Amino acid sequence: MGSKYPPSVRGCLPLWTIALELAFLVIFFFFTSYDTSAQDPKELMGIYRVLQDVTIMAALGFGFLNSSLRRYGWSSVAFNLFLLALGVQWAVLMDGFLEWSFYKKVIIKLSSIKLATMNAMSVLISVGAVLGKANLLQLTVMALVEVTAFVAVRMVDRKYLGTDNHTSMMYIHVFATYFGLMVTWCLSRSLPVAALVEKHQTTKNSSLFTMLGTLFLWIFWPSFNSALLDIPNERKTAVFNTYYALAVSAVTAISVSALSHPRGKINMTHIHNAVLAGGVAVGASCHVIATPWLAMVLGFMAGLISIGGALCLRAYFNRVLGIHDTCGVHYTFGLPGLLGGIVYILLTFYEVTWTKNSMVFFQLFIDTGVLSLAIASGLIAGILTGLVLSLKIWKAAHVTKYFDDQASWEFPHLAVGF
Amino acid sequence: MGSKYPPSVRGCLPLWTIALELAFLVIFFFFTSYDTSAQDPKELMGIYRVLQDVTIMAALGFGFLNSSLRRYGWSSVAFNLFLLALGVQWAVLMDGFLEWSFYKKVIIKLSSIKLATMNAMSVLISVGAVLGKANLLQLTVMALVEVTAFVAVRMVDRKYLGTDNHTSMMYIHVFATYFGLMVTWCLSRSLPVAALVEKHQTTKNSSLFTMLGTLFLWIFWPSFNSALLDIPNERKTAVFNTYYALAVSAVTAISVSALSHPRGKINMTHIHNAVLAGGVAVGASCHVIATPWLAMVLGFMAGLISIGGALCLRAYFNRVLGIHDTCGVHYTFGLPGLLGGIVYILLTFYEVTWTKNSMVFFQLFIDTGVLSLAIASGLIAGILTGLVLSLKIWKAAHVTKYFDDQASWEFPHLAVGF
Amino acid sequence: MGSKYPPSVRGCLPLWTIALELAFLVIFFFFTSYDTSAQDPKELMGIYRVLQDVTIMAALGFGFLNSSLRRYGWSSVAFNLFLLALGVQWAVLMDGFLEWSFYKKVIIKLSSIKLATMNAMSVLISVGAVLGKANLLQLTVMALVEVTAFVAVRMVDRKYLGTDNHTSMMYIHVFATYFGLMVTWCLSRSLPVAALVEKHQTTKNSSLFTMLGTLFLWIFWPSFNSALLDIPNERKTAVFNTYYALAVSAVTAISVSALSHPRGKINMTHIHNAVLAGGVAVGASCHVIATPWLAMVLGFMAGLISIGGALCLRAYFNRVLGIHDTCGVHYTFGLPGLLGGIVYILLTFYEVTWTKNSMVFFQLFIDTGVLSLAIASGLIAGILTGLVLSLKIWKAAHVTKYFDDQASWEFPHLAVGF
Repeated sequence: MGSKYPPSVRGCLPLWTIALELAFLVIFFFFTSYDTSAQDPKELMGIYRVLQDVTIMAALGFGFLNSSLRRYGWSSVAFNLFLLALGVQWAVLMDGFLEWSFYKKVIIKLSSIKLATMNAMSVLISVGAVLGKANLLQLTVMALVEVTAFVAVRMVDRKYLGTDNHTSMMYIHVFATYFGLMVTWCLSRSLPVAALVEKHQTTKNSSLFTMLGTLFLWIFWPSFNSALLDIPNERKTAVFNTYYALAVSAVTAISVSALSHPRGKINMTHIHNAVLAGGVAVGASCHVIATPWLAMVLGFMAGLISIGGALCLRAYFNRVLGIHDTCGVHYTFGLPGLLGGIVYILLTFYEVTWTKNSMVFFQLFIDTGVLSLAIASGLIAGILTGLVLSLKIWKAAHVTKYFDDQASWEFPHLAVGF
Repeated sequence: MGSKYPPSVRGCLPLWTIALELAFLVIFFFFTSYDTSAQDPKELMGIYRVLQDVTIMAALGFGFLNSSLRRYGWSSVAFNLFLLALGVQWAVLMDGFLEWSFYKKVIIKLSSIKLATMNAMSVLISVGAVLGKANLLQLTVMALVEVTAFVAVRMVDRKYLGTDNHTSMMYIHVFATYFGLMVTWCLSRSLPVAALVEKHQTTKNSSLFTMLGTLFLWIFWPSFNSALLDIPNERKTAVFNTYYALAVSAVTAISVSALSHPRGKINMTHIHNAVLAGGVAVGASCHVIATPWLAMVLGFMAGLISIGGALCLRAYFNRVLGIHDTCGVHYTFGLPGLLGGIVYILLTFYEVTWTKNSMVFFQLFIDTGVLSLAIASGLIAGILTGLVLSLKIWKAAHVTKYFDDQASWEFPHLAVGF
Repeated sequence: MGSKYPPSVRGCLPLWTIALELAFLVIFFFFTSYDTSAQDPKELMGIYRVLQDVTIMAALGFGFLNSSLRRYGWSSVAFNLFLLALGVQWAVLMDGFLEWSFYKKVIIKLSSIKLATMNAMSVLISVGAVLGKANLLQLTVMALVEVTAFVAVRMVDRKYLGTDNHTSMMYIHVFATYFGLMVTWCLSRSLPVAALVEKHQTTKNSSLFTMLGTLFLWIFWPSFNSALLDIPNERKTAVFNTYYALAVSAVTAISVSALSHPRGKINMTHIHNAVLAGGVAVGASCHVIATPWLAMVLGFMAGLISIGGALCLRAYFNRVLGIHDTCGVHYTFGLPGLLGGIVYILLTFYEVTWTKNSMVFFQLFIDTGVLSLAIASGLIAGILTGLVLSLKIWKAAHVTKYFDDQASWEFPHLAVGF
């Protein structure tokens, strides 16, 4: 019950993901080879460490960050792993195809896997908004489209707008948020919000798992923000600033959440949202901020707008716009990412003015363009993907089965009254 | 109730583990000393990082991987830590005694602790099959025997069969699996399978803890597969191949599990089993595979046979052979390990043929011998250990107390109806 | 109900933490700047790795270590993060102000953040004893006082008693324990112990979360003990000794816990307490112990006294002294830390005697002084803080609301019967 498709049809859907995996295999066979050049072993281990940090964030951090729904914990963690594993493979290919020529093979380096993992994180961010409303096949399609779009946007940024690798990556937060919001808008138009309250309940333990994911992200965020910086001193500055912004946003999140409640009680969902806001907000400008207080101000403001957004906008988004943001992606990544983008533009403008560069307005124009491009492409690609995903060919679960592990998991051994 | 031995007798059993620890202390006093040679501090930190990765896998990964049983979570995690701590001490001694002469002391280096941790992992793999059917004293005996046997097999591999350090270690999966299966065969002969169904239930939260362990192993598996390779380029290739095999086996596991169910539902136990299969299968040959597609094929096949085995063989093993494999060790480590061993033999054979080496069949013979030795010694050592452990002197818990934390844990503060 | 203060008053309390955060911001604005000197990038990454290890211990390890109380899991983890984020900021300032002159700005390096995180850990240790009896504002005050006191004690150690950076840090365990015990003594004088039994219950899952925290601490403890050692060989020795002491104390903890129960059952609380005791005990002397057996003896003794203390002293502390030690901080950190301090004094004495140094008794006197200073300052600062915190101005929760997440958390989405 719950699905109007006969079991035999639904059982065949995974064939598509297997076919996709085999297609990947063939593409890798024809078009890729490993990097076999000799390299300084210590440098190699340095890149490997950063890759591990990023993978921990992607698999453990994002996996458990979205596991707070009482009935959707298994899907959150396992689908996250699935999308990560798939997204990384696709991102390596996309990065290779868009950057190198078609005549020679794509060379796979450790650093290209690192970059691919970061690109694939865009999917993991978006999925936080979509989770519970799409089946695995829909998520797979979404992952492929999103990775393609994000890699393409980054290539445009770098080739035509002169943005560096780091900055174009840091707009991942706004791109992925608005992509996810648009997809969830298309999928949740018919969502009977009131009826889902029961499924949106959390439990003490699932909140602790979410906290575990949040802490992994909190700890390794400095690695993420400094992963694409090559100059050692910029890396150091990025680590400093991210560390300070995160520390301040953790303190702010807990204080402001208590302040916003008439009896001073803290809301766990606010914490999950706002603790990371500092790291997001400081992302784009973490290598140019020269003093701790500026990073701290950013962390403070990010914590404020993250909780402020969750308090003021959530009902509006849910009821009026009909955008149902499952895990509050808009408040964790979207708004702080916007803040970070604006601050980066202002900082660059200020710096350029200071050096009395005549190009000052041109630079302002370009920087604004890069941020707008990230938002616009996220919105457009998201709405297109969402429209495609709301077609009936995907055999999505019925709306009564939303946010329920039982739609996709077998529970043979499960106790009755857990 | 439940045990036919008077409390005073059972209470004295831990004395043996304390006595053993004191015996270790005396042996370390007489026969070991620290490595005090000056070393490049950065190289040192490199080894320390790998040691940390391997310890995370052993303590957190294996600890939580086996925690899915509803009533056996505490024992899984705590006994795992106990066996790791004990196994590492014993493995350092064994490695030292078998490799150096008796005239001088065993020198303990960081790399020998790393090696010892990897040797001790054989116990943590086997214990997955035995868990719930043996008390701590039986597990201790098993750990001592298994570490000794595994270190001895590896010494034979290296000294008489010319195998390198890495390859002989990678047969840990087949050795440990068949060791564990034999031990559990001896212990579970009288197991009333039907009556244990209730104890085999899992809960949502314990499955999430298992997922946590699985993810830790998934993330750090590239470190494990490259830990014993010295040539930087081989390490890099090993990391690449392991990463790709794991990514593909994660995708395959989730897809195939859904495909094998008539209504397309995924089985969590399959995921725990098959997600890691790619890393296991690629182990032995991860430093010689030169292209990503081959690693991906291996990952795909490993995922397939892992789930296929769990679907087809589990009932046969449980009912017909009477081998009760608590956590599906055979499907996570055994079958993929076998696949990996065979692929390694074929790859070496192919490479040797290619170079028109006249020793080609001799090499094939040797390689097959190494794999067979690992399996045979696992089976024989396992059956001997199992027979010893099924003696009554160990005062094992009664069969009705199997898979139950209450046999070995005090619950003073526990809520009644949790 | 439960609080005699009107909601509006309690709701305003978080204003103080926000004001504090803004004050920090202003201080950082005027008095600090980043270290911008060029540095060897590999050395930099080495420090960053250690910083990450220490942060994992602080955020994940201590966060989950204290989460075993059935109704206090959320507070344990979130307050821990709050105090860490706040404590690190304050410790960076304190370290800077006490060590550099007031004329120039405090330079923030990666290593000063590392040091600040370690200083802030003193708060995380103490909080284990206080948890459940103080609101967030009280904990904030406690954190500020404790970090100040600990940094001051360490400065006295280094400037006037000639202690090195490492040793003065390793007395963190005794300092923080006695600080925490004194604070909890002042706060728990009116505690109706019998009535709280129900709230002290643990659950299977919350114990697994605690085990997760314990394992993180266990795995990264060698990083903590070697973090402040500069000579590579001393670092190596510190890692060796910590590793061995931890391995032995894990084995001892589980064995002795089973031995102390008439029917050989293991107590989970003992495990959480005693598994880490080896790492604590070996802290002060981990760089001078030259043989594994001595580290193992220390680990064994630490495990023994940790469980022995928990068995014999807990009731005495609870009933007679009225010191209610929520998470057994005295047995995890206090007693093993004392043992470690005494062993360090004896080892130094023995070494000095051996070299026929005439200063032998002077050295003994100094070393004893350093240990006594740590204990005495912990006791005095703790009792003063406790007295201040037991004033009514802090609007603490009523005693019936102790150990209850509901005093500080909003549960909007929580299921009724979880």
